[in-house]
Amino acid sequence: MAAVEYAKGLEGVIAAESSICRIDGQNGKLYYMGYPIRQLVELCSFEEVTYLLLYGELPTREQLAIFERKMRTSRPIGAPIQSMIREFPRDSHPMELLQAVVSYLSGYVEHRIQHDAHCNCRITLHQVSQLATVVAALHRFRNGQEYVAPRDNLSHGANFLYMLHGDEPSELEGRIMDDCLTLHAEHSFNASTFTARVVASTLSTCYCSISAAIGALYGTLHGGANEKVMDMVDQIGDVANVDAWVNKALDEKRKIMGMGHRVYKAKDPRAIVVESYLEKLSTEKGDSRYYDMLKRIETVFRERMEEKGKPIYPNVDFFSGAVYRLLGIPSALFTPVFAIARAPGWLAHILEQRSDNRIFRPKALYVGHQERDVAPIEQRR
Amino acid sequence: MAAVEYAKGLEGVIAAESSICRIDGQNGKLYYMGYPIRQLVELCSFEEVTYLLLYGELPTREQLAIFERKMRTSRPIGAPIQSMIREFPRDSHPMELLQAVVSYLSGYVEHRIQHDAHCNCRITLHQVSQLATVVAALHRFRNGQEYVAPRDNLSHGANFLYMLHGDEPSELEGRIMDDCLTLHAEHSFNASTFTARVVASTLSTCYCSISAAIGALYGTLHGGANEKVMDMVDQIGDVANVDAWVNKALDEKRKIMGMGHRVYKAKDPRAIVVESYLEKLSTEKGDSRYYDMLKRIETVFRERMEEKGKPIYPNVDFFSGAVYRLLGIPSALFTPVFAIARAPGWLAHILEQRSDNRIFRPKALYVGHQERDVAPIEQRR
Repeated sequence: MAAVEYAKGLEGVIAAESSICRIDGQNGKLYYMGYPIRQLVELCSFEEVTYLLLYGELPTREQLAIFERKMRTSRPIGAPIQSMIREFPRDSHPMELLQAVVSYLSGYVEHRIQHDAHCNCRITLHQVSQLATVVAALHRFRNGQEYVAPRDNLSHGANFLYMLHGDEPSELEGRIMDDCLTLHAEHSFNASTFTARVVASTLSTCYCSISAAIGALYGTLHGGANEKVMDMVDQIGDVANVDAWVNKALDEKRKIMGMGHRVYKAKDPRAIVVESYLEKLSTEKGDSRYYDMLKRIETVFRERMEEKGKPIYPNVDFFSGAVYRLLGIPSALFTPVFAIARAPGWLAHILEQRSDNRIFRPKALYVGHQERDVAPIEQRR
Repeated sequence: MAAVEYAKGLEGVIAAESSICRIDGQNGKLYYMGYPIRQLVELCSFEEVTYLLLYGELPTREQLAIFERKMRTSRPIGAPIQSMIREFPRDSHPMELLQAVVSYLSGYVEHRIQHDAHCNCRITLHQVSQLATVVAALHRFRNGQEYVAPRDNLSHGANFLYMLHGDEPSELEGRIMDDCLTLHAEHSFNASTFTARVVASTLSTCYCSISAAIGALYGTLHGGANEKVMDMVDQIGDVANVDAWVNKALDEKRKIMGMGHRVYKAKDPRAIVVESYLEKLSTEKGDSRYYDMLKRIETVFRERMEEKGKPIYPNVDFFSGAVYRLLGIPSALFTPVFAIARAPGWLAHILEQRSDNRIFRPKALYVGHQERDVAPIEQRR
């Protein structure tokens, strides 16, 4: 029927201009606002990177102090939100709760973006802050534990681990958690970020936009890859089984999770950082089981691919699941943690969309019935 | 910077094939699955039209009986949802609550679309049913009234009015409410429907997709036009003031709300139906104030436009606000009612997207900094 050409999934179609994220897949480089991701991770906290994404520039010491105070005093969640989390059915997925809570939170903010002449949602930061609190609270309630109130003298990452476990993390753990958030804070127009922009283009609130983006991230084609890597690791069970398992999987043309990336043809720059974290954490914890297995999987996989002349590298998801697990984060929270990390990126895109807005309203190619009459119900078959 | 051409807001860009809705704007025609909207309104209930949108064909009497029973027994909402609605801050917008509740509801359904091999969410109808219950409950709680449990022997529209007011509506009222839902059930790729499809394309759940769509509908560029028409009517106050008000507004080049449509160049077919309902309701209630004013606004506006040789007709929003008000629905609920009506359309698009899916991932045109170094914080200005 459709002789008309169009790009399915809008693949290759430019949807908007953006100055937030640059990905140089050929050379394995990623930049936020022009800054290389390696430098941001080495020199900046997640809160600094959040500031960068929202304002377009890195903060001075004074700006950061004010911004940090705002984010940190926004961390606690109120009693109605706590009871909403507590009562959420235990067998349902945390992402559904997260989507619900973000919209619900908007009821508690005086500031409404559509009533703001400057289209400025930079001051509605508490959703970025509170996402971490919500995820930690859900984890504790599901384990029959009490809510741990956030602290304001820890980084965003370290405080998340503190709320999750009730103990202050080691310096290395806190730093790694914070950096993992930075590594996932932004990645241009994927489905969730595009969703955030489409919703923002109607001049809906940034809460509604982020809630919608969370719904997209929940999709199995989007978030959840690091969860699948750890499922694979658990299946293999021991480094001694890796060679046989990977070879068999490749012989059977099964996919090895966490390998290759649609955009990066060189090694994903985030994967390099996360791999070094996994090594450090394994040493600190005296448990190199995951590290050894993953490195062996990588080697066997690379050797097999080299035979075919196709270099395929691990992506960020390949190592991040193991890092999270060593930080005491269960698999079901991997995608929620992704949402915590991506919130500043989504907000940046919402702001950018609103700064030069046109409502998203593409065309459908109609391929259905042209015209037919409604038959009375007794004549239908 | 951007010498590359692209369509802002994806205007005119085909995003997918669809066989759900055909709009013939030139001739003022609208079809669902090939059936003219006039015939659907005259011959079918909203539940029948919902069936049509989900299954692609109108139901037989037996099919409809089973389907109606499913939808009607799904109407009640449980205690946790009721208390979530009751505790939602009173000054916040019902659409934010609605978005939250839909995601939250997903926690209560056993069926998860991504675990369903047939990608079939036709059986998760209870969100379509329950949206009406949620909106009615919110209205009553905000007015210090108790929850009215739904009835299973009323149409979807009549039951909504019953839950809202606690009294059974007249036959005419119930029929008009039901038909107004049908008129708004579907309208191809607007921003909310496109949002639903983008989220569905990640293989997220249909709850998450519909919740996201609600967030888009909340935007002031999308829903809310009939609310603005009634603001205008309230400002004018009396039919005697119409001529002066409209002439002054046009002289000052202000927009007359509810006039003209991006797609319909002839009269919006839905507007014709809603106008006749307004006339009938005005007669039944012995109150033709809104009808008289709107008809006079239309006349004055048309005369002024004819002088310029530009025929512009009222759209569906022009009359629907007045109909809703005569049905006892306050302005703040107009967009939530739109969501109740549109839910089957969104679901139809989610199903269609999943039946031949490709994840939506368009490109950004990067226009920002190419590469710069992170300065130590003390060197930043």
